Amino acid sequence: MIPPALPRPAVPGLFLALEGGDGAGKTTQAALLGAWLTALGCEAVLTREPGGTALGRVLREALLHGEDLDPRTEALLFATDRAHHVHSLVRPALERGAVVVTDRYIDSSLAYQGGARGLDEAEVRGLSRWATGDLLPDLTILLDLDPAVGARRREGAPDRMEREADAFHVRVRERFRALAAAEPDRYLVLDAARAPEELHAAIRERVSVLLPGGPA
Amino acid sequence: MIPPALPRPAVPGLFLALEGGDGAGKTTQAALLGAWLTALGCEAVLTREPGGTALGRVLREALLHGEDLDPRTEALLFATDRAHHVHSLVRPALERGAVVVTDRYIDSSLAYQGGARGLDEAEVRGLSRWATGDLLPDLTILLDLDPAVGARRREGAPDRMEREADAFHVRVRERFRALAAAEPDRYLVLDAARAPEELHAAIRERVSVLLPGGPA
Repeated sequence: MIPPALPRPAVPGLFLALEGGDGAGKTTQAALLGAWLTALGCEAVLTREPGGTALGRVLREALLHGEDLDPRTEALLFATDRAHHVHSLVRPALERGAVVVTDRYIDSSLAYQGGARGLDEAEVRGLSRWATGDLLPDLTILLDLDPAVGARRREGAPDRMEREADAFHVRVRERFRALAAAEPDRYLVLDAARAPEELHAAIRERVSVLLPGGPA
Repeated sequence: MIPPALPRPAVPGLFLALEGGDGAGKTTQAALLGAWLTALGCEAVLTREPGGTALGRVLREALLHGEDLDPRTEALLFATDRAHHVHSLVRPALERGAVVVTDRYIDSSLAYQGGARGLDEAEVRGLSRWATGDLLPDLTILLDLDPAVGARRREGAPDRMEREADAFHVRVRERFRALAAAEPDRYLVLDAARAPEELHAAIRERVSVLLPGGPA
């Protein structure tokens, strides 16, 4: 069943977020989604957090490859990256009618800094909403995967978040699923163990009805 | 009149903040204060915001010499720097009984991002208190100076904050003074047009009674 389109926010574009643990296939799905949107004639902006801007790349380096950080510093770094990303890139793109696809957004902060690091989730949410001026995605696509499977898919040396213990990544997955369950109209939850083309077809079907101008 | 010493926080050290506009002499007074404390046999830790840590120096560069930032991103960058500074440097030093002297702290965020950039001051305060786990200075020394005089004293090329218009710096000064007026027991306000040695004597007099172990 395809749920009805949600009320549009005040901006003309469409804002989509991909969420899920490492190795769930977010980058692949973002690329497939971007290619499909472009073929439809949409302006597709593919971006990510942290690191979607020049400042963001500096912050991403500090977050993933720098010294040890306490949970509040880490949460504030992510919020800083998000504030700048939304202000300088996401919101301007939505205002000119683009479809913005971000690899990670607020839910990653809630799942990693709230759920898994043990910060108060309401405080982490408040920080992100203040940072973004309350900009929420029209749809969040959760690529749900057993973290053990995600870790086996990963290439290259693990970063600071990826090096966390298995229990950390299990808590992250649980929080993602709970966030999606609490707002089913704003989420599409997919079993990320499925083949990439199958996942892409499911995403197309759901995104199709949300596109500016109606179903593709 | 020397006001009575304030109730000690839960840490054994003493936490002093120097505040004021550019060119007010904070760096000079921090150095004189540090030398005096060291001569008394105290462990004096002189530090600053932004940039008192390795991560902080990366953030300071982005804040003062990077691209244009919207007010929330700027406020979040300062809060991130502060969280890491307090967690990794200030609090450990206070816990081992040191006297920590920081060149700028929460009041700078309230005056610059709240008062002068127009963000909600209660929100900026909430951000800093969350970042620091509510660590406030035992005493804040405000070096109060006409911003036009401060600008003439400045050496080298102005940074991103220093390049702001005169009205911005006038609002910053007004907010600093208002913050001090609201909590006279926690502030020492000095006319920074006075000679450095006179200012240092006034600071010594006030700090003396706050030192661990009583008046020096």
